[in-house]
Amino acid sequence: MGSVTGSVDLAGCEWLRYDYGPARMARDRPDLFTMWRYRELLPIPDGPMRYPVPIGGTPLLHAPALRQTLGTPYLWIKDETRNPSASNKDRATALVIEDGLRRGVGTITTASTGNAAVATAFGAAAAGMRAVIFVSTDCLPEKLALMTQAGAWVFQVREGYAAAVDLSRTAARTFGWLDRNTGANPFTIEAKKTVAFEVWEQLDRRLPDVVIVPVGDGPTLVALEKGFTELISCGLATRRPRLIGVQAERCQPLVRAWHGEPARPTELDPRATVADGIAVIRPAIGDAVLEVVRRSGGAMVSVTDDALLSAVATLAGRAGVGAEPAGAAALAGLESAVDRGLASRLETVVLLITGREVKAGEATYAPDRVSVVESLDEVERELAE
Amino acid sequence: MGSVTGSVDLAGCEWLRYDYGPARMARDRPDLFTMWRYRELLPIPDGPMRYPVPIGGTPLLHAPALRQTLGTPYLWIKDETRNPSASNKDRATALVIEDGLRRGVGTITTASTGNAAVATAFGAAAAGMRAVIFVSTDCLPEKLALMTQAGAWVFQVREGYAAAVDLSRTAARTFGWLDRNTGANPFTIEAKKTVAFEVWEQLDRRLPDVVIVPVGDGPTLVALEKGFTELISCGLATRRPRLIGVQAERCQPLVRAWHGEPARPTELDPRATVADGIAVIRPAIGDAVLEVVRRSGGAMVSVTDDALLSAVATLAGRAGVGAEPAGAAALAGLESAVDRGLASRLETVVLLITGREVKAGEATYAPDRVSVVESLDEVERELAE
Ligand SMILES: Cc1ncc(COP(=O)(O)O)c(C=O)c1O
Ligand SMILES: Cc1ncc(COP(=O)(O)O)c(C=O)c1O
Repeated sequence: MGSVTGSVDLAGCEWLRYDYGPARMARDRPDLFTMWRYRELLPIPDGPMRYPVPIGGTPLLHAPALRQTLGTPYLWIKDETRNPSASNKDRATALVIEDGLRRGVGTITTASTGNAAVATAFGAAAAGMRAVIFVSTDCLPEKLALMTQAGAWVFQVREGYAAAVDLSRTAARTFGWLDRNTGANPFTIEAKKTVAFEVWEQLDRRLPDVVIVPVGDGPTLVALEKGFTELISCGLATRRPRLIGVQAERCQPLVRAWHGEPARPTELDPRATVADGIAVIRPAIGDAVLEVVRRSGGAMVSVTDDALLSAVATLAGRAGVGAEPAGAAALAGLESAVDRGLASRLETVVLLITGREVKAGEATYAPDRVSVVESLDEVERELAE
Repeated sequence: MGSVTGSVDLAGCEWLRYDYGPARMARDRPDLFTMWRYRELLPIPDGPMRYPVPIGGTPLLHAPALRQTLGTPYLWIKDETRNPSASNKDRATALVIEDGLRRGVGTITTASTGNAAVATAFGAAAAGMRAVIFVSTDCLPEKLALMTQAGAWVFQVREGYAAAVDLSRTAARTFGWLDRNTGANPFTIEAKKTVAFEVWEQLDRRLPDVVIVPVGDGPTLVALEKGFTELISCGLATRRPRLIGVQAERCQPLVRAWHGEPARPTELDPRATVADGIAVIRPAIGDAVLEVVRRSGGAMVSVTDDALLSAVATLAGRAGVGAEPAGAAALAGLESAVDRGLASRLETVVLLITGREVKAGEATYAPDRVSVVESLDEVERELAE
């Protein structure tokens, strides 16, 4: 411990003094806790890591005030908002770019209107790589500002998000770019499974009973199951946690599919919910989500927008964690799961808090970096200029 | 390294496989790198740390793309935006609250309109403590939303910021609350000095030639000097880095004082600059800033708003680091320092990137948590209700 031995006045400012000596300083070099820790289970050959920003190693918070408020003594928060672009998307971006840096690929592409696009733009900037992002024409100017602030090229597609995905994937194939489209590149799952490893290590090599997680396209949840399964395959765990996937009531295709029912039109409107990050009508790997939720003995639940907003406020006010509504969905899902008897307040439950919105600040979007296109030819022409 | 041995199809989603076994997993427990690592030089007695969120241990980035663009092969970025509320203010908040938790104090107070208030609100929420924040009546609604989202009580003072500081400090004395006012509580400096220790460790126990840092009230810069001085006192270093303090041209009281000149009225307008975080007319510990800059062999420089905005864009686009203008001031200051012969592009230079604005998201401010007051009596009445 530090023993203060007195204090001195420095130009009106009080400086505490200690009994100085080399033994006061921390000894061994601090070890950055990052996802590369698991590289023996990542598809990356030997050699130094090249991605220049530490990713992962996010805290597992015991959130004492929140535990008390909720009456959940064994609750944990896995805080993925502590990644550099404030969401779990940074993990997938880092692994895809690491692979590209090793293979000498200079461009990464994705379609997305949200956190994956922001993570791709900032991650590519850090690595000195070009990012080419495809969005629908109704992507918000604020999001465009974030992407172009980091120097990304943004192409808007009139036919909407699905067409943007098609164009991005075709561009990747045609030009040999890195394909960061979620679910399309298996590396996105490989990267996100490291969350499962971290939780297991952070619980002293034990698994929780339940993990609750927001579901959009599906990779976040599916990757958790892959991580837990691999711990079993490695002989390090014997059972898997129940996975509870959460969707917003107003866009819940996978909750309905889980119950074997068709979703009503009012339950398939991505713009009707505050949880834009998980509002996906046709989830990229929805079948895999249903399969792994079943395997894990878990369930899918939906939550109202009010419950999502209230979860945002509770996380801020009782855990000091800032989250966007989709990012806070696991907390809303906990209440819903407890009500339905799918989880108990006395189990060891991990809430995966997936994201927080970041701000572009003073930046307005660079108009010369954004254009509307209909074909790959136009993309090629714009980039050549 | 990970050797992929094949892949399986899981409901349409490709899962890579490895040669599984216990040896594939990371061995020793990951060590969280936080500021508590330096507790033998912190004014905290023995016993487990109680503050429930890991703080500090932020990355020192080698920023290869930025180095190349600037022609600065030994440049480093100390990225303080990776703290939980996205600024270096989290360090001071954590230490002050840790002290309060040990002494059983249940309320923390500060005056601030910016990052310190947000850090205090979120930090108190995490610790289950009450935060009472004093701001001027012209504090932006968006900032109020952030503070009240985390459950803080906010009191607005018509007479402006200086009066808010007085009221906050008087309240702390009168009610026995923790005083988090920057520069007033020596613990704020103790906490922020850990940045100096981290940089030294991250450079393999060596010190850089120059550290460039934004200056508002002064504790960030003064604390760096304290940290470097303590490394010398401990017999672990023999010289101190030159400290270069950066202010915005439109509010540069300390740059003028450094040159022994009075500031012109147009150089003392906190609202005229985009760098609101460092726009302070009467810095709380300005004399200490001038003294330690002199001691270190450094200097004070001012930068234009254009340079600040361009620094924000360069940090995003070449290092993937999102910063607010005040947070990016060190990069603008580097250019200014090089132009004036105060630093060379070939020296080992650390830029302290201090903050990024966070978003309150959907939250609007809780009106019942905000009120205009003129006296401590009113504060007491409001809190009692
Ligand atoms: C905040 C947030 N949470 C959760 C998700 C869901 O992730 P996935 O698409 O992997 O299901 C997203 C996806 O964009 C997101 O932005
Ligand atoms: C982003 C940012 N940078 C720098 C500073 C300056 O810190 P100090 O007041 O310790 O000089 C502040 C203070 O509020 C800030 O918000």
